[in-house]
Amino acid sequence: MPCQSQARNGLFRRGAIRFRTCPMKINGIPYRSIRLDEADGWSIRILDQTRLPWQVEWLRLTDEDQVAHAIRSMQVRGAPLIGAVAAYGMALAMRRDPAALEPVAAMLGETRPTAINLRWALEKMLAVLRPVPAAVREAAAYAEAAAICDDDAATCEAIGRHGLPLLQDIAARKPGQRVNILTHCNAGWIATVDWGTALAPIYMAHDAGIPVHVWVDETRPRNQGAALTAWELGAHGVPHTVIADNAGGHLMQHGEVDIVIVGTDRVTRRGDVANKIGTYLKALAAQDNGVPFWVALPHSTLDMRVADGVRDIPIEERAAEEVTDITGQDAEGRITRIRVAAAGSPAANPAFDVTPARLVTGLITERGRVAASEAALAALYPEKIAR
Amino acid sequence: MPCQSQARNGLFRRGAIRFRTCPMKINGIPYRSIRLDEADGWSIRILDQTRLPWQVEWLRLTDEDQVAHAIRSMQVRGAPLIGAVAAYGMALAMRRDPAALEPVAAMLGETRPTAINLRWALEKMLAVLRPVPAAVREAAAYAEAAAICDDDAATCEAIGRHGLPLLQDIAARKPGQRVNILTHCNAGWIATVDWGTALAPIYMAHDAGIPVHVWVDETRPRNQGAALTAWELGAHGVPHTVIADNAGGHLMQHGEVDIVIVGTDRVTRRGDVANKIGTYLKALAAQDNGVPFWVALPHSTLDMRVADGVRDIPIEERAAEEVTDITGQDAEGRITRIRVAAAGSPAANPAFDVTPARLVTGLITERGRVAASEAALAALYPEKIAR
Repeated sequence: MPCQSQARNGLFRRGAIRFRTCPMKINGIPYRSIRLDEADGWSIRILDQTRLPWQVEWLRLTDEDQVAHAIRSMQVRGAPLIGAVAAYGMALAMRRDPAALEPVAAMLGETRPTAINLRWALEKMLAVLRPVPAAVREAAAYAEAAAICDDDAATCEAIGRHGLPLLQDIAARKPGQRVNILTHCNAGWIATVDWGTALAPIYMAHDAGIPVHVWVDETRPRNQGAALTAWELGAHGVPHTVIADNAGGHLMQHGEVDIVIVGTDRVTRRGDVANKIGTYLKALAAQDNGVPFWVALPHSTLDMRVADGVRDIPIEERAAEEVTDITGQDAEGRITRIRVAAAGSPAANPAFDVTPARLVTGLITERGRVAASEAALAALYPEKIAR
Repeated sequence: MPCQSQARNGLFRRGAIRFRTCPMKINGIPYRSIRLDEADGWSIRILDQTRLPWQVEWLRLTDEDQVAHAIRSMQVRGAPLIGAVAAYGMALAMRRDPAALEPVAAMLGETRPTAINLRWALEKMLAVLRPVPAAVREAAAYAEAAAICDDDAATCEAIGRHGLPLLQDIAARKPGQRVNILTHCNAGWIATVDWGTALAPIYMAHDAGIPVHVWVDETRPRNQGAALTAWELGAHGVPHTVIADNAGGHLMQHGEVDIVIVGTDRVTRRGDVANKIGTYLKALAAQDNGVPFWVALPHSTLDMRVADGVRDIPIEERAAEEVTDITGQDAEGRITRIRVAAAGSPAANPAFDVTPARLVTGLITERGRVAASEAALAALYPEKIAR
């Protein structure tokens, strides 16, 4: 099941961005995190992220309800990937009933509240499909979903290129020593279509011979760091160390972190950053210790309709069991769920927090690095203001 | 196995402090976290904290090696309790060989590096036992260990009384609403001999009818919050909610935390606070959101020999498996260990961090509340300066 560009070409141009498709590898074989099934050419294959790091299982999705379930249950997660998968959910729905455009978009749009890419992708699909006759909606939907995926891969590759100089600069300042990057949650290639956002510059630096080392926050409660980021980095050969989410501040106090790079689920027009719960705490520690705190994002993560992120970005409250219970592999290799918390103790599980722009050193976008401010974002994305 | 004061009296005076013994209950029965075995009168019973919250198991310790193992393996943990158990470890050793005073103290002193109470208790034992003839060292050691335990219980009760007004004040400002306290790790009665440090004011407020509610940080990697604090609070009937360590900042941003109270393993003479890894991140969030951040400690936790905590407090690095693997109870009730992190990914496990005094609103001691500053601490504990 190797990598397959939906556009079926290995090297091409989109706008000003030149990129290779599918650089990300598992055991040396390049993959994208979403693709059409090779056998039937219409159903969707996704890497089931609830099975990682124990099993690499490519789940087949055949209708929009399966897509909604995959997003809700976090079989797919990561803001850019959620958008891409939702786009294909629209394509699957059009295959069955071209008239179901609006209700399917509304249903998919309600699967998760925080990542704005979901809304962005669905609005893009609606804009293409609404004017199109029912008879050709299926073809148009598949074409647009493929374009969204290719665009995301190209965008993430560009994010990588614009983030790379940050790591090159650190490497130049401390020759012969490792460049220590701390990241939270998973903003790697499996959170996007390819490359990743926060991890894209790290992969490029590693491939370029810079001695990067990544502190991987385990990212409770769902352990996307310990389970997904560590797996991704390990599969690609990038040196890394898993740490409890509690450890980052201590490491920064002792000079063990050169830079923090995280992804995001939504950035407001003034630069407030929603990301996995706990990101805000790392931003505070970075500020307190003079460590640069960068946020990597594609254009699809910008929400120009919101200014004050703490006040206005909806924060998903997920099930208490994600906190009280943990899934892992027992000594016999069985995937087992255990309860960690005291019996009868309730739990709360806000899934995201918002880091105010004042704590963000800068944003790494596909158009370049930019300050987390309304003026800078408006200058970089003028077409988003006009809308 | 009910509560047993080593001094065998239910209400008595020690200095200016009046207290009841053994207010802390499991299912309505009062207990202390350490006591002499009822049957033989000389061996030690401890609550095995590696079995909580699943089993209430009173482990019997009969020699200093078992005591050392119990401390290292964290069957007993919590700075004050470590000191009390080490004191009884000396008593057990004196029973076998009164000449082994110095080597046993050195051995016990190396079991864990960060909590200063361990050194404090051993120095106290040495000061009593060194001048005493070998023939009476056993009796003297048991008497001093009992005094250390009674002193700790009295001290913690006084900490509770001095912390209580903080919660009463909050309750008075928001009548009819719950008082939300966030705590990290476990600084309850099972971390001490009785009452606890950070939890003592909370127990008193609850018992006084103040509608307290505790946000319990789960406290990765060893989950002392989810497993121990939640169990303690639940057993005593105090309303609480377990949260991922990542969630505290978000809750503070949204006004859901009125006060943070934590315990500590060592406070320097200028007020820097070593405590469970991740405490520093909560202190930063508290400061950023104007939430008072208080630290509760007995006199035995003060280390006047150290000023700069970040630089000079030794931070214990524990096993990587504590991060990569988690123990809990499976669906069939079996205590099971599972691996959460990706196979082959290494982990780092610093067990404590240091919160600079500038982030600490104040200290709650058995002598009253005090600023986290050199001048304030010197005024409150003049005898500690003289040494």
